[in-house]
Amino acid sequence: MYRLQEVARPAAKYFVNVPLKLASTLCPGEYSAPVVSTPVPGPKSKKLLAELSTFQQSGSVQLFADYNKSLGNYLVDVDGNVLLDVYTQISSMPLGYNHPEMLKALDSDENKRAVVNRPALGVFPAADWPAKLRNTLMSVAPKDMGALTTMMCGSCSNENAYKNMFMKYQRDKRGGTSDFTEQEKESCMINMAPGTPKLSILSFMGSFHGRTLGALSTTHSKYVHKIDVPGFDWPIARFPVYKYPLHENLKENDQEDQRCLAEVEELIEKWEKKGNPVAGIIIEPIQAEGGDNHASPYFFQQLQKIAKKYNAGYLIDEVQTGGGPTGKMWCHEHFDLETSPDIVTFSKKMQTGGYYLKSEFLPDIPYRVFNTWMGDPTKILLLDAILAVIKRDNLLSVVEKSGEVLMSGLRDLESEFPALINSTRGRGTFITFDAADAKLRDDIVRRLLQKGVQSGGCGVVGVRLRPALIFQPQHGHAFIDKLRQVLAETK
Amino acid sequence: MYRLQEVARPAAKYFVNVPLKLASTLCPGEYSAPVVSTPVPGPKSKKLLAELSTFQQSGSVQLFADYNKSLGNYLVDVDGNVLLDVYTQISSMPLGYNHPEMLKALDSDENKRAVVNRPALGVFPAADWPAKLRNTLMSVAPKDMGALTTMMCGSCSNENAYKNMFMKYQRDKRGGTSDFTEQEKESCMINMAPGTPKLSILSFMGSFHGRTLGALSTTHSKYVHKIDVPGFDWPIARFPVYKYPLHENLKENDQEDQRCLAEVEELIEKWEKKGNPVAGIIIEPIQAEGGDNHASPYFFQQLQKIAKKYNAGYLIDEVQTGGGPTGKMWCHEHFDLETSPDIVTFSKKMQTGGYYLKSEFLPDIPYRVFNTWMGDPTKILLLDAILAVIKRDNLLSVVEKSGEVLMSGLRDLESEFPALINSTRGRGTFITFDAADAKLRDDIVRRLLQKGVQSGGCGVVGVRLRPALIFQPQHGHAFIDKLRQVLAETK
Repeated sequence: MYRLQEVARPAAKYFVNVPLKLASTLCPGEYSAPVVSTPVPGPKSKKLLAELSTFQQSGSVQLFADYNKSLGNYLVDVDGNVLLDVYTQISSMPLGYNHPEMLKALDSDENKRAVVNRPALGVFPAADWPAKLRNTLMSVAPKDMGALTTMMCGSCSNENAYKNMFMKYQRDKRGGTSDFTEQEKESCMINMAPGTPKLSILSFMGSFHGRTLGALSTTHSKYVHKIDVPGFDWPIARFPVYKYPLHENLKENDQEDQRCLAEVEELIEKWEKKGNPVAGIIIEPIQAEGGDNHASPYFFQQLQKIAKKYNAGYLIDEVQTGGGPTGKMWCHEHFDLETSPDIVTFSKKMQTGGYYLKSEFLPDIPYRVFNTWMGDPTKILLLDAILAVIKRDNLLSVVEKSGEVLMSGLRDLESEFPALINSTRGRGTFITFDAADAKLRDDIVRRLLQKGVQSGGCGVVGVRLRPALIFQPQHGHAFIDKLRQVLAETK
Repeated sequence: MYRLQEVARPAAKYFVNVPLKLASTLCPGEYSAPVVSTPVPGPKSKKLLAELSTFQQSGSVQLFADYNKSLGNYLVDVDGNVLLDVYTQISSMPLGYNHPEMLKALDSDENKRAVVNRPALGVFPAADWPAKLRNTLMSVAPKDMGALTTMMCGSCSNENAYKNMFMKYQRDKRGGTSDFTEQEKESCMINMAPGTPKLSILSFMGSFHGRTLGALSTTHSKYVHKIDVPGFDWPIARFPVYKYPLHENLKENDQEDQRCLAEVEELIEKWEKKGNPVAGIIIEPIQAEGGDNHASPYFFQQLQKIAKKYNAGYLIDEVQTGGGPTGKMWCHEHFDLETSPDIVTFSKKMQTGGYYLKSEFLPDIPYRVFNTWMGDPTKILLLDAILAVIKRDNLLSVVEKSGEVLMSGLRDLESEFPALINSTRGRGTFITFDAADAKLRDDIVRRLLQKGVQSGGCGVVGVRLRPALIFQPQHGHAFIDKLRQVLAETK
């Protein structure tokens, strides 16, 4: 059985029994098509950009949006252009713009007070906090992951999750207790061993896990993120690089899995010998920022076994993949792992940062993983509304249907324009295709935008699709049509 | 002229011309006094704690609050106890609870949409974002600090500010450009020099700058924050330790300044020789978590000169001191620095994390300091309401008046109970006094709570006061009365 079959599954088989309701919309009042009346960015965006640039580094700003007029899958900019948004604020808008249920969440006086009275959640949580966490984050926890830490964003979720893995690793070395020696207590205050130990996190080339200094030491997708910033001496393994189309390269790709897994073990042993043992392994289920690089379920299964063998924590970073875009709430659920990962981090579509843990990864004494806010109740009340809509509107199956429209449409375009695009890959609507080169990729993204489609790049040559969960098959067809126009016009 | 005069200034001089309106309140409908009807935490808090503890490490939770009933300076817990709050969610509630102007900010449809449509601010900011930043954060920027980066919390503000200092340091080494070599671009991807350089941040013993791995390497207040977590090999200097009362120890304290400043220079030179040069110095204007340790304006002035001499960035961490509690918007304004610091970080009372920079510390190319959200517009609309109230109600002068009530009351109590408390120190209402030992400190905090006052500890023996900016002289008198009872009952 080919291990990557799910990534490569043919779109057709899903259409046989699924009647698509192309006319219906999950967001009443949504625009019916993109409308572009100025170049994007237009004159108003450019004027605002000049203003913002007087006090910020704003070279990354693409346009200024009108969030009063944006709705559903359509982002409206200040120049009045109506853009079909398949990028959704770097994959962070599960219900698109101005979803009525999210707005409704802010109508109640109680929720308004929750926004205004932001507590130090680790010290003075609100009366309804345990129930709110149970009804939201815990209700969609991966199987057998019984513990939860809330945070603010993806970077600090990973950073703190590393700490949980370091603490667990050291606690195991102490025989399961946290009886610190006086020497440990004193030496850690000046960053010296034994209190501040040499311990490492193994990460993969092409990965993105955030930009704070610990997270950045495990990020290896683009030099602009890293250059000039000090880092930890931690091991970096090769992430499998497959040949596409997958079904024509089974053997090579299988060998690639084996090579990469062997390297992981070599690195763990090497760092152990260096006196800097690996306390945890972090990996994305799909390397997103790095180019939507997929690995086989087999690879993830074996990696879990290796982590277990060396008593390293197994952390799956679902910051970009979590919350439904792959058709399951958590992408790693596609992998049939023997047991759940030890830690799963999230942010973006979940509104709040945070992570699930197996309970043995919780610190056994308080204040070790802690900060002033420990998350934000405002985000939980929005998440509450979002999860209710995901359930009510069966959005995970919408994702699957729309994903098939996109995958099948992109494969058709690959056949029509083989010199221009290739290597379509994805799960659900979490999809990327490659352009023939970096220049063409940038050109495709730019010309899609002029036709009213907001997409994004990833890796060197990838065009990244990250639509909302309310992105329906008709939006998928509209996207494919626009892309076909762009490719047909390519000289 | 004694350099610490401002810290030690006698309360009396401020009372001569200031008529206190003891009866008025800045928060209509506020409770008039604490009411305690159960032990704190009470049975309902304990029950909720048991529930939360099934899936979180909740050993730090003190009580569960009823944020629907809390108002102004009074925190109401789930057992109905009404507590005068001089701790305010670890110093993060500038207007106390349920301030009407903050609630009003959530009434407008436009602001509700801002909460719901959270943008990737570095890519698709809203039309009103430049103006909003100008009217809020930029309107209270320290003098001559023309640039701003928004973030999410204090830790990530410091982490990213370090990156700005590293980038500036390396850019200067390149002669002011960011023309990276191919070798730099490639080596940084695997955390190796020259792209990943050895560079350090100098911090001070007793400091607290956050808990993510970079920030934690500069945090040295309590072992529980640090133990088992790897850190960078960065220099740590002694923060001045003064003898109190200050006016009786002028010479010793002055010598202490000189000793500590000399050590900073020694460490910078030592780390330069080690090939790990100091790119930045971080310091709190008052070491808060570490015990409310003050240093003289002279010390901060000289430290700035040293930073300049070695081309290290001078970062003042105002996460806890910023936003008004010292009677000025920024605590470092008390220091008469030659020019503004290079970077000032903030969070807590400012609702949003972030930092001000001198514009030469902005990266000259985009995406180097960047993340998905880059802050949160929800917090800016709350900050907008907060800043308007600070101005309307002249809250910085309220802080000064209430601070004098507290300082003068605490000094009276020091005289009444010299064996129990000492070393009262502070600016505005940012005040701490020391108990004779750690056990007594914990006991004072605990018994204050049973009398209806929520305070907090800091350092080993400090009791930390962090009231809201709407904490008025009558609240100060109420606090002093309760503390007098606690001290009188001490056996």
